[in-house]
Amino acid sequence: MAIRPLHDRVIVKRLEAERTTATGIVIPDSAGEKPDQGEVIAVGRGKILDNGELRAPQLKAGDRVLFGKYAGQAVKIDGEEVLVVREEDIFGVIE
Amino acid sequence: MAIRPLHDRVIVKRLEAERTTATGIVIPDSAGEKPDQGEVIAVGRGKILDNGELRAPQLKAGDRVLFGKYAGQAVKIDGEEVLVVREEDIFGVIE
Amino acid sequence: MAIRPLHDRVIVKRLEAERTTATGIVIPDSAGEKPDQGEVIAVGRGKILDNGELRAPQLKAGDRVLFGKYAGQAVKIDGEEVLVVREEDIFGVIE
Amino acid sequence: MAIRPLHDRVIVKRLEAERTTATGIVIPDSAGEKPDQGEVIAVGRGKILDNGELRAPQLKAGDRVLFGKYAGQAVKIDGEEVLVVREEDIFGVIE
Amino acid sequence: MAIRPLHDRVIVKRLEAERTTATGIVIPDSAGEKPDQGEVIAVGRGKILDNGELRAPQLKAGDRVLFGKYAGQAVKIDGEEVLVVREEDIFGVIE
Amino acid sequence: MAIRPLHDRVIVKRLEAERTTATGIVIPDSAGEKPDQGEVIAVGRGKILDNGELRAPQLKAGDRVLFGKYAGQAVKIDGEEVLVVREEDIFGVIE
Amino acid sequence: MAIRPLHDRVIVKRLEAERTTATGIVIPDSAGEKPDQGEVIAVGRGKILDNGELRAPQLKAGDRVLFGKYAGQAVKIDGEEVLVVREEDIFGVIE
Repeated sequence: MAIRPLHDRVIVKRLEAERTTATGIVIPDSAGEKPDQGEVIAVGRGKILDNGELRAPQLKAGDRVLFGKYAGQAVKIDGEEVLVVREEDIFGVIE
Repeated sequence: MAIRPLHDRVIVKRLEAERTTATGIVIPDSAGEKPDQGEVIAVGRGKILDNGELRAPQLKAGDRVLFGKYAGQAVKIDGEEVLVVREEDIFGVIE
Repeated sequence: MAIRPLHDRVIVKRLEAERTTATGIVIPDSAGEKPDQGEVIAVGRGKILDNGELRAPQLKAGDRVLFGKYAGQAVKIDGEEVLVVREEDIFGVIE
Repeated sequence: MAIRPLHDRVIVKRLEAERTTATGIVIPDSAGEKPDQGEVIAVGRGKILDNGELRAPQLKAGDRVLFGKYAGQAVKIDGEEVLVVREEDIFGVIE
Repeated sequence: MAIRPLHDRVIVKRLEAERTTATGIVIPDSAGEKPDQGEVIAVGRGKILDNGELRAPQLKAGDRVLFGKYAGQAVKIDGEEVLVVREEDIFGVIE
Repeated sequence: MAIRPLHDRVIVKRLEAERTTATGIVIPDSAGEKPDQGEVIAVGRGKILDNGELRAPQLKAGDRVLFGKYAGQAVKIDGEEVLVVREEDIFGVIE
Repeated sequence: MAIRPLHDRVIVKRLEAERTTATGIVIPDSAGEKPDQGEVIAVGRGKILDNGELRAPQLKAGDRVLFGKYAGQAVKIDGEEVLVVREEDIFGVIE
């Protein structure tokens, strides 16, 4: 099951942030804050501007992106939580 | 009785989410949260932009869509509840 | 006495919703919630867009429409309550 | 003393609503709610749109209009209270 | 010392409203509410619209204008209080 | 050290208002309210309108301007406080 | 790891403000207020205006900029905090 987002929305899957303590023990994310990085899974066609032109999306599937802790809305697809975010709420692409 | 929505509105019928417990018992939706998926029943002609052009709808009747828990407004048609939602409040199409 | 609405406004007369119980007794509307259906009595010329063009109304007198419980503003004409609603607050036309 | 309103404003004089009880006694308006009808006394030149065009007023002096109870701002001219209202806050013309 | 207002602002000097009691005694304004009339002292060049055109001011110095009790911002010029108001907050011209 | 403001911002240095009591004693500004006059130190290139055109600034360095008590945001440059204000929050030029 | 900001966003690294007491002792910033200067690390492509044109950024990497204490949103890149700010929330360039 896949989602094709509308307009300027993108679907983002949060990346679990692995963290290692000084002694090398990996603490899974559930013990910490939610990460604010993710991978773009799908992008919409873009936003239709007031003059009728389409503003093509700057993101593409596979991009690793940075976003605010409270960006977008969480939905469950096949039991897995993803975020639906407007492209303009994405800060940037991690390279 | 059918509704022809105006402008960029769509009529959506919520899909009842069947859920199965570990032992295979199906729990009807009334015992859980409202689902946030639905089927598009009707779409308006689209939104008229500030320059007078029509932005045609991206959705069509029959599309299975994803939306936020609090999207749109519920109305009853022939005793059956449907949602009236603006297309831009629909997250995407499930494929 | 009649009202000619300005711009993108329409005048709507609420339809009294007759309801029948299982035994066939009709319960008048005053015993229930206000209905959210109505008949369009008059429509304005339409909305003038930012580029000076007129967006003609999609509704016409006689249309049976669906709207939110709290849409528009009630006014009394010759002792009868009608609603003054902007066309974009009308959900759709019942056919 | 007269007011020439600017832009899309109109000057409206409230009409005193006479009300008659079942026995025919007229109750002056001060004993009831303020009426929401009035007569247009003066209209501005119209609103200048974002593209520089003038949207001419749809109202003219002498029109009897309907408006919301809390529309506009009251000012006193020669000791008489009138309302200054934007044309788009007028519901319609009574004919 | 004079002010040349920017864009669509105007400088207005409040007019002291003399009021006469039934016996003919003039009560200076300090004993009553602030008047809401004034004289335009200076006007800006006008507002630049979204399409780059200038909307010329409708007011000129010397106009006697009507405005809301809480319009604009008071500033002192040479010890004298004047109001800086956007033209669209002026109701109209008194003629 | 100098600031080159972006877009439609200007940098303003508040003018200390000297005040003289009846006996001629000058009370420095720290004993009174902050003055609302200032001198423009630097101006940005102007605002880019929705149609892509540049609206050139109406102010230039050296202009003595009037502004509201709470306009802009104070920043320190080399230990000296200046205000960063959008041109449209400046009331006018003192001549 | 680097970030390529989207649209009209810039990435800014705050500059630590060293402060010296009268006796010459340097107090590191953690003992004082956060500085409001920073260095631009990366800029987006610019903002797409309503008419479809791109407004190119006025800032470039390496610019030393001034911004409000509460501008932008802080994110951590490789353990180092940077700010993601819209260009129009940057006051100006320090030269």
